[in-house]
Amino acid sequence: MTVLEAKEKLMKLQSRLSAYNHAQELMFYDEATIAPEKTDENRAHALSVLSEESYIISTGPETVELLEFLDAHKEELDQKERRMVFLMLKEIRRMQAIPMDEYVAFQELLGTAYGLWRGCKVNNDFEGFRPTLEKIFETNIKFAKYCAPEMHPYDYWLNEFEEGLTMEKCDEFFGSLKARLIPLIKKIGEAPQVDDSCLKGNFPEEKQAELSDYLMRLMQVDLGHCNLMTTEHPFTTAIGSHKDVRITTHYMQEDFSSSMFSVVHESGHALYDMASEDDLAYTVLDGGVSMGIHESQSRFYENIIGRSRSFIKFIYPKVKELFPEAMEGVDAEGLYKAVNKVEPSLIRTEADEVTYCLHVMVRYELEKKVMSGEMTVAELPTAWNALYKEYLGVDVPDDRHGVLQDSHWSGGTIGYFPSYALGSAYGAEFIKKMKEDVDVDGALAEGNFAPLNEWNKEHIWKFGHLYTPQEVLDRVLGKPFNPEAYIEYLEKKYTDIYFG
Amino acid sequence: MTVLEAKEKLMKLQSRLSAYNHAQELMFYDEATIAPEKTDENRAHALSVLSEESYIISTGPETVELLEFLDAHKEELDQKERRMVFLMLKEIRRMQAIPMDEYVAFQELLGTAYGLWRGCKVNNDFEGFRPTLEKIFETNIKFAKYCAPEMHPYDYWLNEFEEGLTMEKCDEFFGSLKARLIPLIKKIGEAPQVDDSCLKGNFPEEKQAELSDYLMRLMQVDLGHCNLMTTEHPFTTAIGSHKDVRITTHYMQEDFSSSMFSVVHESGHALYDMASEDDLAYTVLDGGVSMGIHESQSRFYENIIGRSRSFIKFIYPKVKELFPEAMEGVDAEGLYKAVNKVEPSLIRTEADEVTYCLHVMVRYELEKKVMSGEMTVAELPTAWNALYKEYLGVDVPDDRHGVLQDSHWSGGTIGYFPSYALGSAYGAEFIKKMKEDVDVDGALAEGNFAPLNEWNKEHIWKFGHLYTPQEVLDRVLGKPFNPEAYIEYLEKKYTDIYFG
Repeated sequence: MTVLEAKEKLMKLQSRLSAYNHAQELMFYDEATIAPEKTDENRAHALSVLSEESYIISTGPETVELLEFLDAHKEELDQKERRMVFLMLKEIRRMQAIPMDEYVAFQELLGTAYGLWRGCKVNNDFEGFRPTLEKIFETNIKFAKYCAPEMHPYDYWLNEFEEGLTMEKCDEFFGSLKARLIPLIKKIGEAPQVDDSCLKGNFPEEKQAELSDYLMRLMQVDLGHCNLMTTEHPFTTAIGSHKDVRITTHYMQEDFSSSMFSVVHESGHALYDMASEDDLAYTVLDGGVSMGIHESQSRFYENIIGRSRSFIKFIYPKVKELFPEAMEGVDAEGLYKAVNKVEPSLIRTEADEVTYCLHVMVRYELEKKVMSGEMTVAELPTAWNALYKEYLGVDVPDDRHGVLQDSHWSGGTIGYFPSYALGSAYGAEFIKKMKEDVDVDGALAEGNFAPLNEWNKEHIWKFGHLYTPQEVLDRVLGKPFNPEAYIEYLEKKYTDIYFG
Repeated sequence: MTVLEAKEKLMKLQSRLSAYNHAQELMFYDEATIAPEKTDENRAHALSVLSEESYIISTGPETVELLEFLDAHKEELDQKERRMVFLMLKEIRRMQAIPMDEYVAFQELLGTAYGLWRGCKVNNDFEGFRPTLEKIFETNIKFAKYCAPEMHPYDYWLNEFEEGLTMEKCDEFFGSLKARLIPLIKKIGEAPQVDDSCLKGNFPEEKQAELSDYLMRLMQVDLGHCNLMTTEHPFTTAIGSHKDVRITTHYMQEDFSSSMFSVVHESGHALYDMASEDDLAYTVLDGGVSMGIHESQSRFYENIIGRSRSFIKFIYPKVKELFPEAMEGVDAEGLYKAVNKVEPSLIRTEADEVTYCLHVMVRYELEKKVMSGEMTVAELPTAWNALYKEYLGVDVPDDRHGVLQDSHWSGGTIGYFPSYALGSAYGAEFIKKMKEDVDVDGALAEGNFAPLNEWNKEHIWKFGHLYTPQEVLDRVLGKPFNPEAYIEYLEKKYTDIYFG
């Protein structure tokens, strides 16, 4: 085999595997959007077969031989090929460590877990979901130990979602936030509250859908390759490659701002996912770097842009046109304050920008304890409610509004949540850099997302998964990441709103 | 390898292949329902990879060896296993007979043919489609000769879609229909026309959707395993197995009966598809026998049941509740007559029950001539228009409303159309047998589909693809199939409506 032949085989291999991913992603998407309710078992069958097939392809002797051959000829590979080989070998090492029957059994479990969670959430039935959740935590611990016996299982998963992240770093990061945000929240709590009654009312779904469409077009999301559906929990998924990306939202009849900011958030993910360079399609470099960098983009659009004075001023006429009753007597500044109201609450996805990280911190601390064996899954609801009381001062009335609110665990994902907080903090560093090159407020005043998107594309998006999160941060910032910029951003913005 | 081991491998093999089918069916369904518009290229990539993978699995040397081993030990197989081996080997023999490069070239041709046809139909441009259609007919003749050199090519394809069907049988069947239906249509044309203005108006989609939901529930379609979406053309597809079936409809704002009967038709397909015995799931026996038997069920529910006096009488109050303006002054008998209006027309999919078979006959006679070399593709438009004039008495204004109306040929499918007519005729025999056991009109008077569905399930549905179409007919009828029952049914029903 020549290196040239091996390179061709490498591309062919990734192309094959991406088709399996396409199928599996589409099945999950179908389940969350339009599939009949009782089709989980049937889907689980197909998922288990296809995940076994793709497991065999991606870890089989021919593949291992190919990748090791290419790894031994690193110097003849270009940067992209080197990264592909590195990522695929890393994945193989992980896969080799996990016994195949356990891997397949876990995929089968996940095939039904989401549907089960959805039903249990509706029925406020934590006990119904508990056995499955226990298996998910147990399996995550077991798999982590297979893959990296020397690591704490939670460190293993934190690093999987955000290369380089550890509990130590999280403790430090959340420690800084806690020290400054809890006092800020307290101070805000003592100030006169802003009036957000303009967001409440009775907002027909078709009007909200019109707003969704308006926002996606405004943000220049390519609607030929991306669309919007409704699901219980909003999300973004790429189907097979960056050429087909789906986002979802959830309409709340009584509050239009809930879906409005979901759509902006998921559109941020979608813009990123869709902007990989074309030659990355059907390779492991297609899409985003990490969950943290991905959330830095979605929360950048949702909050730093979407909840900025300039953006709100621009969309205000459209909002008023769609919801004239609610906006009666409210000007753009009133809407700006309303969407930035700070108020400790129960639901993470509806939390304001300041309290948001505390929601994440609750999940981080609980995951850490269960993954460390210091807490059982059965104890989660009580512990959840206690931390919400401690950090946010709120009483959780039931598990539906508590421990059952998020879908992540039902997807088998433990260790993902910290990325949301980290991503938010990255975003505050990014906007400072962006403003060195781009007149962000000037562009938003004209409703022109092109320079913002272009900057993100050139600095972050187009590279897909070519760099590590740390490399992306280094390349963009030119200095080590520091949460200080984020804390300052929050302090400045919300002092202006509440005490300006 | 012991026979027992081989049997286990046979089940495993089918289970694997069904997962690939699941993925591919879901991709087609997604494309037709909710996928963003410009995602074809991305989907084509995944489809081509997965179809190649499943082709390799289903025709690879290990599979051939397994099936030949089992075929050599037929006497140790049960009935289901024997049929599985027979069907899978038959498919392999066909694949082996066609040179791979010619097969691939044909698939490539078909990759563009549908889009070309759609464009040519819109532009009324038969000449633009002609070269492609010529290749499609030529290739069908060539492939038939590879697979069964001893057979007439058209007989080969008729038998592919309806095992046991031949031109001789078709000639006899269509000959009987022609002799009796053309005079009937002529006679009806001279009688006072029924008034169907109650079906026309402005019917909001949400009201029509409510009717769809009502009809599916009334027909006892299991909504946990089946749902309804909207598409350009209505269809039914099983996703992976009988445990997940999707139907679609198309709402016409100006005529609620169009979607109403689509929903009943597709629900007929779905009831059949969903009723295979559980142990047939993930095998080649899951689902239906043939296109003819499948259409016998869908058209049974659509016409023999759905357009019956008892059924219309039962649903009349619901229709009146949903569309009070249109139903003003129209009683159940008026609605019954309206949905049974006979009127020769240009388009097969909109044809009434009596003229429908003549539309099919035109296609059968033309396909037969071209496949026999007695007519060129270039002569099709003129011949089409002449037969429409002769059989239906209508003048075809252009090819868009004539020879270019159906998509089947552009999909490479020659010999499929007769199944539609045969299926309709089977249904008339089935209802006679059913009435020996079930008080059909009594059940419909109470809106109770259970005894009808149960009878179909016991006699036809639960066996999936275990029997040939001929065996199904023999088992149900206990005598050779005869189109007389169908002709009598039409004569009696429509004489009553027009001259009663």
